[in-house]
Amino acid sequence: MLLLPIFVFAGAPAGVNGASAVSVMPLPASVKVNAGKLRLDASFTVGTSGFTDARLERAILRMQHRLRRRTGLVLPLGVAPVPAPPTLTVAVKEAGATYPKFGEDESYSLSVEGDRATLSATAVVGAMRGMETFSQLVSGDGDGYYFPLVNVQDKPRFPWRGLMIDVGRHFQPVDVIERNIDAMAAVKMNVFHWHLSEDQGFRIESKKYPKLQGMGSGGLYYTQEQVREVIEYAADRGVRVVPEFDMPGHTSSWMVGYPELASAPGPYELEMRWGVFDPTMDPTREETYEFLDAFIGEMAALFPDEYFHIGGDENNGKQWKANPQIREFMRAHGYHTTAELQTYFNQRVLKIVQKYGKRMVGWDEVLTPDLPKETVVQSWRGYKSLDRAAREGYGAIWSTTYYLDHMGPAEYLYLSDPLPADSTLTKEQASHIVGGEVCAWGEFLSPENIDSRIWPRTAAVAERFWSPRDVNNVADMYRRLDVVSVWLEQPGLQHLSSTNRMLRQISGTAELGSLGMLGRIASPEGVGTREQMNHHGTPSTQLIPLVKLTDAVVPDPPFRRQFAALVDEVLSDAPKFGAGSEELTKTFQQWRDMGPGFGAISAKAPVLLNASGRVLQLEKLGGAGLEALSYLRSGSAPPAGWKESQLALIKQAETPDASLVKLPWLASYRALILAAAEVGGVRKSDRKEWKQKVLNEAAKQEPPAKYTW
Amino acid sequence: MLLLPIFVFAGAPAGVNGASAVSVMPLPASVKVNAGKLRLDASFTVGTSGFTDARLERAILRMQHRLRRRTGLVLPLGVAPVPAPPTLTVAVKEAGATYPKFGEDESYSLSVEGDRATLSATAVVGAMRGMETFSQLVSGDGDGYYFPLVNVQDKPRFPWRGLMIDVGRHFQPVDVIERNIDAMAAVKMNVFHWHLSEDQGFRIESKKYPKLQGMGSGGLYYTQEQVREVIEYAADRGVRVVPEFDMPGHTSSWMVGYPELASAPGPYELEMRWGVFDPTMDPTREETYEFLDAFIGEMAALFPDEYFHIGGDENNGKQWKANPQIREFMRAHGYHTTAELQTYFNQRVLKIVQKYGKRMVGWDEVLTPDLPKETVVQSWRGYKSLDRAAREGYGAIWSTTYYLDHMGPAEYLYLSDPLPADSTLTKEQASHIVGGEVCAWGEFLSPENIDSRIWPRTAAVAERFWSPRDVNNVADMYRRLDVVSVWLEQPGLQHLSSTNRMLRQISGTAELGSLGMLGRIASPEGVGTREQMNHHGTPSTQLIPLVKLTDAVVPDPPFRRQFAALVDEVLSDAPKFGAGSEELTKTFQQWRDMGPGFGAISAKAPVLLNASGRVLQLEKLGGAGLEALSYLRSGSAPPAGWKESQLALIKQAETPDASLVKLPWLASYRALILAAAEVGGVRKSDRKEWKQKVLNEAAKQEPPAKYTW
Repeated sequence: MLLLPIFVFAGAPAGVNGASAVSVMPLPASVKVNAGKLRLDASFTVGTSGFTDARLERAILRMQHRLRRRTGLVLPLGVAPVPAPPTLTVAVKEAGATYPKFGEDESYSLSVEGDRATLSATAVVGAMRGMETFSQLVSGDGDGYYFPLVNVQDKPRFPWRGLMIDVGRHFQPVDVIERNIDAMAAVKMNVFHWHLSEDQGFRIESKKYPKLQGMGSGGLYYTQEQVREVIEYAADRGVRVVPEFDMPGHTSSWMVGYPELASAPGPYELEMRWGVFDPTMDPTREETYEFLDAFIGEMAALFPDEYFHIGGDENNGKQWKANPQIREFMRAHGYHTTAELQTYFNQRVLKIVQKYGKRMVGWDEVLTPDLPKETVVQSWRGYKSLDRAAREGYGAIWSTTYYLDHMGPAEYLYLSDPLPADSTLTKEQASHIVGGEVCAWGEFLSPENIDSRIWPRTAAVAERFWSPRDVNNVADMYRRLDVVSVWLEQPGLQHLSSTNRMLRQISGTAELGSLGMLGRIASPEGVGTREQMNHHGTPSTQLIPLVKLTDAVVPDPPFRRQFAALVDEVLSDAPKFGAGSEELTKTFQQWRDMGPGFGAISAKAPVLLNASGRVLQLEKLGGAGLEALSYLRSGSAPPAGWKESQLALIKQAETPDASLVKLPWLASYRALILAAAEVGGVRKSDRKEWKQKVLNEAAKQEPPAKYTW
Repeated sequence: MLLLPIFVFAGAPAGVNGASAVSVMPLPASVKVNAGKLRLDASFTVGTSGFTDARLERAILRMQHRLRRRTGLVLPLGVAPVPAPPTLTVAVKEAGATYPKFGEDESYSLSVEGDRATLSATAVVGAMRGMETFSQLVSGDGDGYYFPLVNVQDKPRFPWRGLMIDVGRHFQPVDVIERNIDAMAAVKMNVFHWHLSEDQGFRIESKKYPKLQGMGSGGLYYTQEQVREVIEYAADRGVRVVPEFDMPGHTSSWMVGYPELASAPGPYELEMRWGVFDPTMDPTREETYEFLDAFIGEMAALFPDEYFHIGGDENNGKQWKANPQIREFMRAHGYHTTAELQTYFNQRVLKIVQKYGKRMVGWDEVLTPDLPKETVVQSWRGYKSLDRAAREGYGAIWSTTYYLDHMGPAEYLYLSDPLPADSTLTKEQASHIVGGEVCAWGEFLSPENIDSRIWPRTAAVAERFWSPRDVNNVADMYRRLDVVSVWLEQPGLQHLSSTNRMLRQISGTAELGSLGMLGRIASPEGVGTREQMNHHGTPSTQLIPLVKLTDAVVPDPPFRRQFAALVDEVLSDAPKFGAGSEELTKTFQQWRDMGPGFGAISAKAPVLLNASGRVLQLEKLGGAGLEALSYLRSGSAPPAGWKESQLALIKQAETPDASLVKLPWLASYRALILAAAEVGGVRKSDRKEWKQKVLNEAAKQEPPAKYTW
């Protein structure tokens, strides 16, 4: 997918469902904003009517604490005693499921009037969703805090709105998991998919097979007590926890302690590198299924959700093909491919999963003949497999475009749809698309930077999962994303502070100067480019500390849009080209002059030296940017060859290098250069046309971006 | 104590113990720096010789992880196998105490040579101290990372180097406590004094008296399991944990569940306000001592340290005087004052503490006749009580000048000494001064801002406790404090990121603009001023969310020193007054123009409106600053009355207002104004004299600051 550079952010409101009037994310299915305000002050009380329970009351208390911290007001805590009419009444009909459940009723309606507000929902979980909307509506003016008067009717578009976190490749402590669950709940996501085992680590305590975590985790795993804590924490926020144990491949870590599970003799070691590896469970031995029966039984009892993910992806088949006994088994069963053998394995595992009362989920490789229809298929290989699953009547989850490690901008993720407008599925088939999952793969995630990889981009996807399909105005999405991004920091996410914190750590100074500027304007290369570059040097492993510049900077930095807006402002001001250029001039001067400051810092922090090339380019880009502004202002054409050298410079700056960071605003920069080169061509009468021509040309020259495998 | 404004930070090195050559804090007793470097690369191994145990090996592992995260190098983890000679040898003679212990040998020596380093210590805890020094020595150059070649001989000046955290007034979760213990260990502090009970909250689980936490904590307390976790965590880092249960006063929270402990009939409620309150234990009833015997027995078994703090401060005596039975008891015992009755109570409690094998610690009110000599007295009321304790042979801890909530700058804390050079104590008496404790009282501490209240200032005090008395160069302290402040962020402290995070939360935007500037240059008023200002309006309570501007900004912001350096640069450039003023000009312009940006943010975030007055002053200070620079540059005198209006403006800006923030750099600003007013008087021949005159005059006009009660 080729993204056009974004040039306009101000301007027309989204126009859909009153989008422009509120800053809520996800945008509700229907919002009607009325004139007037409900004041929020120390008299603000919350009461319940109909059903209530401890879970609802804890959710009310969380909302109150959040509003207190946002406003500084001493709001009363807890549920107000019955006789006095509360400011907000939460009216719930029934408890709903004890643990959140696939397909339960999450709808709610919210009515805010001048003196009272009412939140109505069938089940507690619907009231939780409604409280997230209500909290995000809080605003302030000269007279204090208030809620706008609204009528909201809301329900999710998809019932399965997930985030997968891979803790196998890099372990993430419980507090990281919990703060991400808080953020999920804030944007109405409801499935935490916990990818618990990988070649590189087995991350959960098994009491039946203690060598799994004992030898397969390097000491980094969750105790069952911690897992129960996380499940309760998530349930309290209306979030399901679906565990994944990837098999039969991606299982090196299992075989460190239990080599007999493998299809080739051991011993096995914990895998340190990234990639697809040979160790695969032996699907021909009954002992394998006895092991899995006991293990899955143990885990099925631990996780209350009715779904159980068995992975099933990326088995390279090498161990199977090399093992004569397995070849013989295949021959005897008439299997011509290892895929067929894997189908056999899946069917056997499925029986075990079913025996323990669970429905199976698997990556799209599990989609094989005779798969029971209750299975859910998670598609990571494109619409073809997603749609096939839906056509065949399986529940289907879309993940292909939501791999965060490709570092696509929020708008790319946002415009990807599990069920796009041009889908060829029938209405019945389409009903099998149950939702999607954002995937946070763990190769380059540390507790320090994980939040900034997941957030705020995932909030845009959360809107895709929850809101109607026609809520798709990118400018309005970004406007609201900037607001919700700050809101998400409250429960403890580090996504807005981790860059500078990490840069301070590696540079050893709090006065970041040029390095701080670099941290603000650069973004990490995607996983593909990173691995490609690494293969030229040292292949990366789980041992490498994730403290490089590329680990610190964030995907889709707001600077890309700020810069685009500044360039647009200059280009719109033809033929004067004056306004807006003060800020741009300052920016370019800082780039032009950033060498010495960066040099001084990197001289003492050699880990930064690999960014020296990018900084040199930035110095040149700054200088040429100043020249471009001066040509534009004076209306005089640059000398021959100027344009070509600048375009060559841009090309160089677009080329991946050892820094492993890219400059995601080069499209806008290119437009500025082209405009300066063509400034002679602009006449008063065709300014708009001229600007559009420049922008089109810049977009055409933009190298294609790929944000999936 | 009146602090002179600081004008010079560059310049002369400390000159003590080679201070200027390394950036370690606390500075070791003796450092000799030699020419050359020991390279740090992937071949860097750590081995042990002599004694080793799991505690030492965990400390080595922590050091390795820290160096990895600082450098990005894939350093080998764990202790290198014996035959190969390691890069760093940690040579320890013996285990030392299982739990860190008062007075144990913490000395070490460190020798870094071109190819090897050796860290020698008697006990494991000494090796831990040495590893902190070694880690902080890591540096970088164009060829990579290295350690300078040094010879260090080091040992602490005082054996008791503490930090008290009051979790009674505001609860602090375990992770906050643990990251502060990490920071303590990083600067070689060794006593975490846990102030666990207060009128406002009883913060620890008692199994014998479960209504203590059940009714006295609002649900915010540590389980005994958590307490054990904290004790182990601290022990692993060579930090003792001394619990405090303040009695007989400050005990409202005890009486919510156990009103029979009080000297007046109940019922009692958890105290929400701050101050000194009436509820006091009844010292005349035997049941009181039976309760305390069982309770202290339970706690004495939980905390392994041999010291046990019973508080004993601020009993107002009102309940005692009002109770006829207690009056009769006093008469019968011949007590004329409630202080005498408290002595009786202390003696009884002391017996219980002794019965459980502990030594008693108390605030200086416990210093009464017949107190056993093994008691340690913590002085918060000045040198008179400290010295009296030492003269009478008690162990004495200095805290009077280390109350962080008075918001004194690091240099004030740093120059305060438990045993100042002008002490009149004899050498024997002086030996009873065992150290000091920094006190973090909890009225205005939240998990969000507590780190910034404690750090980095406490690192300067840690140096006072550890390093020789003559290590006292303020400029060199600040130079190293800036380095260690970043270093302290690594284990998780939030002190460098909390201001902007909190400002984002209350403003609802990540683009802080003027608010970010304000956050950088303002600092919180001390607790005295804050309480005084609050008494005009709403008295503060533990219910009020700590999210005001004053809660977000940090004490002693680096800007104070940066601004002082800029002013000094201008004044030193007489009679041209050109250099340095570019940065100052930019700063003043930002202040002059900050109104609209701040207005836009505060219009939507009313909690910020109380800072509008300060912002108005800043706009004027910015404008006048620009005028001052222009008079200085042109050498022309300002018009009549200019100086007087600017000084009036400064006075206004120095006056506490509803913002509860101060501008801690006004001393330097005043010097600039005075210089501009006197610019006519400068002749080439007496520039230095002129500058000094201006500075002296500015210092004279500085209002006195008070950083103790």
